[in-house]
Amino acid sequence: MREKTMLTDLYQLTMNAAYFDNDKDEVATFDLFIRKLPEDWGYFIANGIEDAIDYATSVAFKPNEIEYLRGQGLFTNAFLDFLEGFRFTGNIYAVKEGTPVFPNEPIVRVTARRTEAQFLETALLNIINFQTMVATKANRVVNAAGGAAVVDFGLRRAQGEDAAMKGARAAYIGGAVATSNVKAGMEFGIPISGTHAHSFVMSFPTELEAFRAYARTFPNNATLLIDTYDTIEGARNAAIVAKELEAKDGRLGAVRLDSGELADLSVRVRQILDKGGLRYVKIVASNDLNEYKIEELRKRGAKIDGYGVGTEMITAKPVAAISGVYKLVEDTDGAKIKLSAEKQTLPGKKQLFRVTGTDGKYLHDIIALDGEEHEGAPLLEPVVLDGKRVAERRQLSEIRGYALACVERLPDALKVTKAAARLYTIEISSGLQRLVTSLKERYSAKPVLTA
Amino acid sequence: MREKTMLTDLYQLTMNAAYFDNDKDEVATFDLFIRKLPEDWGYFIANGIEDAIDYATSVAFKPNEIEYLRGQGLFTNAFLDFLEGFRFTGNIYAVKEGTPVFPNEPIVRVTARRTEAQFLETALLNIINFQTMVATKANRVVNAAGGAAVVDFGLRRAQGEDAAMKGARAAYIGGAVATSNVKAGMEFGIPISGTHAHSFVMSFPTELEAFRAYARTFPNNATLLIDTYDTIEGARNAAIVAKELEAKDGRLGAVRLDSGELADLSVRVRQILDKGGLRYVKIVASNDLNEYKIEELRKRGAKIDGYGVGTEMITAKPVAAISGVYKLVEDTDGAKIKLSAEKQTLPGKKQLFRVTGTDGKYLHDIIALDGEEHEGAPLLEPVVLDGKRVAERRQLSEIRGYALACVERLPDALKVTKAAARLYTIEISSGLQRLVTSLKERYSAKPVLTA
Repeated sequence: MREKTMLTDLYQLTMNAAYFDNDKDEVATFDLFIRKLPEDWGYFIANGIEDAIDYATSVAFKPNEIEYLRGQGLFTNAFLDFLEGFRFTGNIYAVKEGTPVFPNEPIVRVTARRTEAQFLETALLNIINFQTMVATKANRVVNAAGGAAVVDFGLRRAQGEDAAMKGARAAYIGGAVATSNVKAGMEFGIPISGTHAHSFVMSFPTELEAFRAYARTFPNNATLLIDTYDTIEGARNAAIVAKELEAKDGRLGAVRLDSGELADLSVRVRQILDKGGLRYVKIVASNDLNEYKIEELRKRGAKIDGYGVGTEMITAKPVAAISGVYKLVEDTDGAKIKLSAEKQTLPGKKQLFRVTGTDGKYLHDIIALDGEEHEGAPLLEPVVLDGKRVAERRQLSEIRGYALACVERLPDALKVTKAAARLYTIEISSGLQRLVTSLKERYSAKPVLTA
Repeated sequence: MREKTMLTDLYQLTMNAAYFDNDKDEVATFDLFIRKLPEDWGYFIANGIEDAIDYATSVAFKPNEIEYLRGQGLFTNAFLDFLEGFRFTGNIYAVKEGTPVFPNEPIVRVTARRTEAQFLETALLNIINFQTMVATKANRVVNAAGGAAVVDFGLRRAQGEDAAMKGARAAYIGGAVATSNVKAGMEFGIPISGTHAHSFVMSFPTELEAFRAYARTFPNNATLLIDTYDTIEGARNAAIVAKELEAKDGRLGAVRLDSGELADLSVRVRQILDKGGLRYVKIVASNDLNEYKIEELRKRGAKIDGYGVGTEMITAKPVAAISGVYKLVEDTDGAKIKLSAEKQTLPGKKQLFRVTGTDGKYLHDIIALDGEEHEGAPLLEPVVLDGKRVAERRQLSEIRGYALACVERLPDALKVTKAAARLYTIEISSGLQRLVTSLKERYSAKPVLTA
């Protein structure tokens, strides 16, 4: 776990200084949830939970960090002494990493002394917003690709190193089968995949010589990029090299298209390969792909066995960020609600239930108050108790398998490229509904709230 | 410098294995440039150069990394032995970090043995694409804000930790005055800034009590968030607390608006504060702001002294990624060109000149062949020679000052929120033009290139 304690908004520290000074450090509960789905998205795959647990259980300021804060001239020595011993000692409930979730559903619920619970906000959002976004985006791309393989090519366009690493992991959880990112391969055990660049072809006098050179080094698994000069001529050159490989018991793996009309080109390239008796040579495609373009390629009859997806999967462009927030829902004074029209919150300590039909498909969810009994499986499970991790550490392959199995059980209408919003029913339990009503009445009666 | 050697696409290693096997490791030159401006953008601020230098000069595989690669079953022992001693020993020329640049202009030029030059591609693009994008986006926001302060609030929505850190740095270079990100403040020496959250207000029985508690801890520099229940009532409560502070020789710093019609609300809040003799209390605003919304607020007469800008500045949403690429332009066989219509490159080892008028404003740029003499200042300077950093390490404040001084000298038409493309002239030198023409003729004559 990287050192993330200082990876926080200053206001977490200024608020905590005021809580400290004003004896407001009693227990409070915060919910992390996402306000709404991006256009066309039907669900989220909650991701980053494992990182979030590691973060919460490792919060601790180092002496040089305390000294930096002292130098800001904002904090009393008493508060800085308090920060020296500051740890997260509370409880966290969360959905399992890889669980499909919907807007307003609690994904993480933190109950702790107010300073501790408040402090987690920034890093939890940084971790969960990004990883949930990429896992979901990747899953959309994988759904659009049908059975074809999707490989993460995003490293060069990722928003920094951490985005490339955690993005590769999230994309894999979302159903990508491999990544081009060697470091992610090593660190997370994700299969790695790679071809060659146009510059490789341009480094030899002719394309054919370049292909021969590459095939000499990789006689059994080369993917040849065939569009440096002309894709059809490139396919013919690849076929020549494939036959030369066969003569030496080698086998060309695939060819890659990276420009032009990919649907049409793939059909023509498939014909060239098939005529050469090279049915086993796969065709993979890249070039600023996303779920919409892949769906269109498939509609147009493209003969493509795999997609390398870069920029738009690793950045979720144009979405770029999802609206995860972290809100106070209860403290020792009772349940809390935020009333502003655009940004209303669901009050109280809650549990999330998911109801499954006899066919194994998810039917609907219920957001309920903690302690209420409901049909369905409770999705929020204890992951940190008294500051200690209690959730077993899961293997990446297990998380991926769980996520993809869950997606199987989602209604098909949610998994299309342009999913309409509100296709899935989220019930608010009667207990929670009563609480909302009573809090609205109570707060509306307060003179301080009138304009 | 973090360990980034393995932060590479697998294809850099497979290509290098083939270069190694085929004795193709002679000297080659690659250019890093950006293909095109996002819609409405008039220029880029080149950023990430310092990181790029640190990366190139620290490339080295560790034993466990070599073992991981061995385990992939792709590489020969001879190549893995070669990787053990692999270092960057070539030359890099680059523009100074903070320099405004335009599409197709070389930002970084790498000349080295082919394996070394090729290998840098992925990490250089990862570093420079993101940081250039955020520095530019921030500069657009700062331009739109006129003289008002812009503060980076992006940490919770940044695409991971590295994006938050490097994004805060890039935003500062682009003209932001502070960040909420405490770790970025400590690591880079950026001023840090923070207020409090709605949850703070909700943690007290009334808003007034919450404001009093916060002001007690920060009697001289509190910013009070006034929209938890009702912005106008919040302004009145803030005014009460400001007067109470005055009685004890304190001074309220500012109030913050975070929802609703910010222009209208800011005018009404200004009136409340001014009537209370609180002209010194500033008004800051946040809520999914970007350059377009800030421009609109100013047009509508908003009384706002500072903007907290989060999601859209740190992710450059909806742009999310810029089209930086890294292309072979020359090797021992001569200049290289890529001809595909969408993705043409400028061949040869080049220099970039910028011509300044008598008023100090930039007039136009010239992309020329290295060695050509031209009017104007050459912008590509040696930063790494024979694998060693030769560029002096610059302070962040110096880079920021340089970038903002350069932006001053750009034509004003480029600095509007909706800048038309091609407002600035980029000349191709006659020498470079002749080279392009002769290469086009030569390659078009090759039979391998006909469809």
